[in-house]
Amino acid sequence: MAVDVAEKTRLEKLAELAVRVGSNVEEGQIVVVAGMVEHVPLVRACTEAAYDAGARYVDVVYRDQHVRKAMIELAPEETLTWTPPWMLDRENYLAEEKAAVIAISGDPEPDLMADLDPERVGKARMLKLSEVALRHTMERVNNWTIVAYPNEGWAEKIFGEPDVDRLWDALEFAVRLDENDPVAAWNAHTEMLDARATQLNERAFDAVRFRGPGTDLRVGLIPGGKWGSALFSTVWGRRHIPNMPRTEGTVRSTRPLPLGGKVVEGLELTFKDGRVVDVKAESGAEVAEAQLDLDEGARQLGEVALVDGSSRVGQTGITFFDVLFDENATCHIAYGAGFDFVVDEELDAEGRKERGINHSIVHTDFMIGGPEVEVSGLGSDGSETPIIRDDTWVLE
Amino acid sequence: MAVDVAEKTRLEKLAELAVRVGSNVEEGQIVVVAGMVEHVPLVRACTEAAYDAGARYVDVVYRDQHVRKAMIELAPEETLTWTPPWMLDRENYLAEEKAAVIAISGDPEPDLMADLDPERVGKARMLKLSEVALRHTMERVNNWTIVAYPNEGWAEKIFGEPDVDRLWDALEFAVRLDENDPVAAWNAHTEMLDARATQLNERAFDAVRFRGPGTDLRVGLIPGGKWGSALFSTVWGRRHIPNMPRTEGTVRSTRPLPLGGKVVEGLELTFKDGRVVDVKAESGAEVAEAQLDLDEGARQLGEVALVDGSSRVGQTGITFFDVLFDENATCHIAYGAGFDFVVDEELDAEGRKERGINHSIVHTDFMIGGPEVEVSGLGSDGSETPIIRDDTWVLE
Repeated sequence: MAVDVAEKTRLEKLAELAVRVGSNVEEGQIVVVAGMVEHVPLVRACTEAAYDAGARYVDVVYRDQHVRKAMIELAPEETLTWTPPWMLDRENYLAEEKAAVIAISGDPEPDLMADLDPERVGKARMLKLSEVALRHTMERVNNWTIVAYPNEGWAEKIFGEPDVDRLWDALEFAVRLDENDPVAAWNAHTEMLDARATQLNERAFDAVRFRGPGTDLRVGLIPGGKWGSALFSTVWGRRHIPNMPRTEGTVRSTRPLPLGGKVVEGLELTFKDGRVVDVKAESGAEVAEAQLDLDEGARQLGEVALVDGSSRVGQTGITFFDVLFDENATCHIAYGAGFDFVVDEELDAEGRKERGINHSIVHTDFMIGGPEVEVSGLGSDGSETPIIRDDTWVLE
Repeated sequence: MAVDVAEKTRLEKLAELAVRVGSNVEEGQIVVVAGMVEHVPLVRACTEAAYDAGARYVDVVYRDQHVRKAMIELAPEETLTWTPPWMLDRENYLAEEKAAVIAISGDPEPDLMADLDPERVGKARMLKLSEVALRHTMERVNNWTIVAYPNEGWAEKIFGEPDVDRLWDALEFAVRLDENDPVAAWNAHTEMLDARATQLNERAFDAVRFRGPGTDLRVGLIPGGKWGSALFSTVWGRRHIPNMPRTEGTVRSTRPLPLGGKVVEGLELTFKDGRVVDVKAESGAEVAEAQLDLDEGARQLGEVALVDGSSRVGQTGITFFDVLFDENATCHIAYGAGFDFVVDEELDAEGRKERGINHSIVHTDFMIGGPEVEVSGLGSDGSETPIIRDDTWVLE
């Protein structure tokens, strides 16, 4: 698996990283590459890299946001939530076959849906497919990763000008492509994250507490639930922990949240008895509301992730307007579905409910951390232990 | 269905034509729009036009020739002919649902596969999907059409320079978008073709004969087989008639034939007892050979179409390097599958065989007509009746 990347172009190096590290494609696997029509060069590079890594078949699927926009604007109401049956067949087949999945992000037109009816934007979602796909993610049947493709529209959103080169530089830093040996750098990084997860698991906190401007949130943890480190298969180094219906307080988002083609600014959620009871935002609150109404579980937390200022994404100082970057810049939580794999057992629907792992077709991450936000662990005796202060990991 | 196109752009007018005339989308239909990633603007325009026409759901599928190229170059041998099961599910579902289909042609890189192993190029084909899709075409379960999207690569191939405007002009003439009322113009055109088909059916020729440079071909016709005129759902005005195993002689292609990403020049086929026994070409013979070896029926004729010089496509004087235009410039034949609908009865596999309708997963059209080629009808008594002379329809 030694890859000499020195001579390769940026695109090829990024594709190699997605295939060899991110999704870690195995010989003989089916590999899905899913991108937008604006991501063609990276899709092609990933396809070649996947075949080079021994893929049996590379299944490329292109999305087109304008096609989606036309649907939201013009299709009959019942189409908005409809799943074409073959897409469900495909999803199930790829799960059975244990396919690798490489998804490509980097929205070339982040404000494309801004003028649409927010209710229809929030509702537009293939319900059956979402449920099955989310279940497969929870069950970790696929080795998947997400990589981003720098493009003009995305760069414009971030920098106010379409400076794609600058975005490439930031991206390369964030995903460690600036290192001589990116693979080794990723290995070292995951080791550090593993060590932090071990710390947290040893402490067995009863709850975590976030305090900062507009935020005082207490999140109860599942007894026996495990803090995870970056899965090797999720390139962006996410750490997860599911919710309990013991979330209380108010939390203010510290970064803009792109959602259904709109950008929600200043999202503020209030939880009571574990459920969102109030939603405020400077803009886009209605899109978040529409999501929270999608099912029973949407209003409960599904994930808490602790990220300090050593994050490479955070160090760029850039708001990427792409949740897969921004959630790794700082602490984040997600409303909606929780992850089975935080508990050491196989669970069915009943078991998940019993263990307090939230079920929903929604899973929306948003950022709540930053230099002004303190994170503490709470013991069942009421003791409070600092975890993050001044954006630095202080737990020992 | 009155469409005021006067104010619309070229793209919107072409999309309207594809939706309102070509595929003739019905209220409540699922509409498939299938194009290459280079066809994005026309795909989007067709999507909007389809929803405007009342489509229930528009299923957009993008192909990427570079992804296909990577597969042909790098995938395991068995992948070349493999059909992902969900694609079969999709094909069957869309047939059951009687979906409308708009396919987009206009190859931006006609020589992309030129350097690949011709055997793998010829073999690369989803066998199961091809068989089922061809059957559905024969059974006419979908109302489908093909429209072309002018682009630089295609224009370069035709004119030697990437003059997209010139290609748009030619296309608009060929598909009657230059008319004040393209819909009325298409109606008049299909009436004329109907009249010709009626003539041919009344004459009930035993065979047709083509004579010209490199060509002396006699094609026996199915007793009771019907000449069809342009189906309203096939915009390009094709007329079909299936083969009998009574094809004898040699035929030389009069236009280049793009095939599997290569261009076959000067294709010359010799038939004996209804089957191709010899293949010659100035270039690309091996791609045609590989296709002819795909199954038992590939070496028999599946279609004969009579087109004279009044063809709009022919009048442009342009070789489009796109079979869906070029086959309408002049007379053409196809090796491979024949069409059920030339006989007035529902047929199963056994019935098709009995009536002499060829079965194959291949159906490749190529052009054999032109000013130097005479076409005659042969009576069972040996009499010969001129049908086309000097590129003009002379049958009365």
